[in-house]
Amino acid sequence: MEKSTICAISTPAGQGGIAIIRVSGNEAFDICNRILAPPTPQGGLLEQPANTVRLRTVVAPPPGGLDDVLVSVFRSPHSFTGEDTVEITCHGSLYIQQEILKLLLENGCRLASPGEFTQRAFLNGKMDLSQAEAVADLIASSSAASHRLAMNQMRGGFSKELQQLRSQLLDFVSLIELELDFGEEDLEFADRTQLLELSGNIKTIIGRLVKSYSLGNAIKNGIPVAIVGETNVGKSTLLNHLLNEEKAIVSEIHGTTRDTIEDVVNINGISFRFIDTAGIRNTTDEIETLGIERTFQKIEQASIVLWMIDTTQFCEKIEELADKIISKTENKQLIIVFNKIDKISPEEQTVLEEEFLPHIPAKRIYLSAKYKKNTDILEQALLEAANLPDFSENDVIVTNMRHYEALSNALEAIERVGKGLQEGISGDFISQDIRECMHYLGEITGDISTDEVLGNIFSKFCIGK
Amino acid sequence: MEKSTICAISTPAGQGGIAIIRVSGNEAFDICNRILAPPTPQGGLLEQPANTVRLRTVVAPPPGGLDDVLVSVFRSPHSFTGEDTVEITCHGSLYIQQEILKLLLENGCRLASPGEFTQRAFLNGKMDLSQAEAVADLIASSSAASHRLAMNQMRGGFSKELQQLRSQLLDFVSLIELELDFGEEDLEFADRTQLLELSGNIKTIIGRLVKSYSLGNAIKNGIPVAIVGETNVGKSTLLNHLLNEEKAIVSEIHGTTRDTIEDVVNINGISFRFIDTAGIRNTTDEIETLGIERTFQKIEQASIVLWMIDTTQFCEKIEELADKIISKTENKQLIIVFNKIDKISPEEQTVLEEEFLPHIPAKRIYLSAKYKKNTDILEQALLEAANLPDFSENDVIVTNMRHYEALSNALEAIERVGKGLQEGISGDFISQDIRECMHYLGEITGDISTDEVLGNIFSKFCIGK
Repeated sequence: MEKSTICAISTPAGQGGIAIIRVSGNEAFDICNRILAPPTPQGGLLEQPANTVRLRTVVAPPPGGLDDVLVSVFRSPHSFTGEDTVEITCHGSLYIQQEILKLLLENGCRLASPGEFTQRAFLNGKMDLSQAEAVADLIASSSAASHRLAMNQMRGGFSKELQQLRSQLLDFVSLIELELDFGEEDLEFADRTQLLELSGNIKTIIGRLVKSYSLGNAIKNGIPVAIVGETNVGKSTLLNHLLNEEKAIVSEIHGTTRDTIEDVVNINGISFRFIDTAGIRNTTDEIETLGIERTFQKIEQASIVLWMIDTTQFCEKIEELADKIISKTENKQLIIVFNKIDKISPEEQTVLEEEFLPHIPAKRIYLSAKYKKNTDILEQALLEAANLPDFSENDVIVTNMRHYEALSNALEAIERVGKGLQEGISGDFISQDIRECMHYLGEITGDISTDEVLGNIFSKFCIGK
Repeated sequence: MEKSTICAISTPAGQGGIAIIRVSGNEAFDICNRILAPPTPQGGLLEQPANTVRLRTVVAPPPGGLDDVLVSVFRSPHSFTGEDTVEITCHGSLYIQQEILKLLLENGCRLASPGEFTQRAFLNGKMDLSQAEAVADLIASSSAASHRLAMNQMRGGFSKELQQLRSQLLDFVSLIELELDFGEEDLEFADRTQLLELSGNIKTIIGRLVKSYSLGNAIKNGIPVAIVGETNVGKSTLLNHLLNEEKAIVSEIHGTTRDTIEDVVNINGISFRFIDTAGIRNTTDEIETLGIERTFQKIEQASIVLWMIDTTQFCEKIEELADKIISKTENKQLIIVFNKIDKISPEEQTVLEEEFLPHIPAKRIYLSAKYKKNTDILEQALLEAANLPDFSENDVIVTNMRHYEALSNALEAIERVGKGLQEGISGDFISQDIRECMHYLGEITGDISTDEVLGNIFSKFCIGK
């Protein structure tokens, strides 16, 4: 096991009121003792009881010390990493954060690599690999739904399901391998009918998990939506409106800039990622080909396409455009959004509803982005178009591509088992397929893992976690 | 006193490994108890001993709870604010931070205004006003020197000096006012010679503090430097070099972008703010007037001007340009930087040193920004040009404009006292001036303050501190 003591700033990067620097490892107390002012009457960190906080001073060149800090002490194994851990809460200037980090490095710490605290928690048996991965998902989750999935996974819901499967498979393979040990006597300890039923059950469960990924991925990464339309039809007004409803509170409370989350709209906990299309320009009577081509490339990435039309400004070649859009959205959900209905009369709208391209099989929404009229209907339509599989709140949902791939492999293996049983093939082949299925499930929980896999997983974490 | 319980995210804005939400006020324990899962076997927050940390769960809609958090408890008066305080350390997703804040607001907290935690610390007598202001300076400080000044001020070094002054003034005014009480008997309790000496001493001390502001301001806000020169003389190469030396460590450790600190170079703990000038273009034989005008406007803001010249490309009208620059930099420090000396021979450099505009009274530096040759000499020249008053490490340095103004007013008042004593004017006028001097000193420490002044000071803090 890694013996070095690691440190990192665990709070978000930048200047703030306060910041936390986390130190974990065998020497955490010794190293921190060296940078904190002479022990208090109650002693240094070694004497400080676990799970307590004390006001201390970081000693450093300035005569009065570098900073007054709160120091929390956690003792192995009762810490996040399972190791001795010190959390230093300092004033949140960049200078102080950096100087404390420098002092720790000078006194024997090593800078933690991304996710290294969580990796140690995994290596010290505080959580399995899928739970460790959920920590990163939890931190990255930005909606109620993605948060709930990460939380459930971190709590071990997924691990528990996988453990049950592995334990069933282990019973299964033990029986078959027992037969192989007595191979010459041609015994059948394992009732083939029962085995077939069991493999069928396992297949169903793994199949459900594999299928859940389309929902999990949509929740975690958002559903890609392309807004198609001419310039000035009100795309940004609509987008701003959808964004503002959700984000106003966040930016008010947190002072966050909207830049990073600009194109993601949260509707009932599901994220919709709006893909910027080039915008189609209508040069008098000819639709600019280049704009259409670019737009169509973007449509490829989307699963829902919003075709936005300014009801007051029909492009003359609208039918031609319609045909092209239809041809590109065959396997996608198409929603036609008629904007600026505040500018037309109810009669005009009725005409539109009845006569506009009636042959196009698309949902139609009539709204005013500017006056926020019917935008709720659009939100409902987006949710319907997302067409997510129906899972109950307590179901385990797979959100991780790595898990999805391992599960898909496990599914193939268990399908081979079922087929083998039906065809009555030799026990050692069946045993091999069951072991393979167990192997893939073990990859998810980290019972089977390589340094390469671990490196790959934790390198995607942020530093300090 | 304010009775509401306040909360805010105290760590830097954004997503990170972990974040801290701080809750302070009479109801801090009650409110937090409501959002944390049913009490542990050891009880809830009321039973949790002061200065301890416990792992708890924030209860909220998702079945498993919103998040697992560490909860630290501090009891009045032994907390930063002096009030009951709870610090909730949660996973650092924006979603979790926001949801916990929402729960606190729903359960009776109010969102803290900027600096309100520190304001409460001041109102509860945990620190005086200049110490409270130093908290904001400490968080904003980005160099060793500015950090040291803020730290010293937060530690009360400045307050102590002011208290001594006020106490001397109080003795002084007491004696004079005693005389006034016995006015009709024409007594002189206060020895006028001693009083004169005392007022002289106080004047010297306040004068030194007022004078220290030029250093304090330079340290806190940086010394403005304008780089003047034609385009392509190597301004950005030089600036990048100066920046990189200092900042490489910061960005490596912290992942900070250099954007926010791009133009500030730290040399021996002193910040130099480089002001972008428009760049002068030399169109064959005529120097573009517009560029010069813009450049000269920027020069106004600078106290040091670096005139950068490409030794391989002399502008033909250089003498004309020189005259203009000289006329604009009369009360500023001018440094002429000859860049690209790697491209000329030692002989050519000697000619340059001897013959180039010998009449111009400016420091000259010969360097190669590209090959980092002699850039250390430039750094030394900048430090000399900054011409900062000489203060010893332990001297109190004033960094705050508000303090500077109050001290200037106090200085005027104490000067009137000295003059009055010399001219033998009536005791009640002298007493009035001493009281005025005390009033201005009291404004700094907050012994005398108005809601308006407080509002003004704390509104400049970040939220959560």
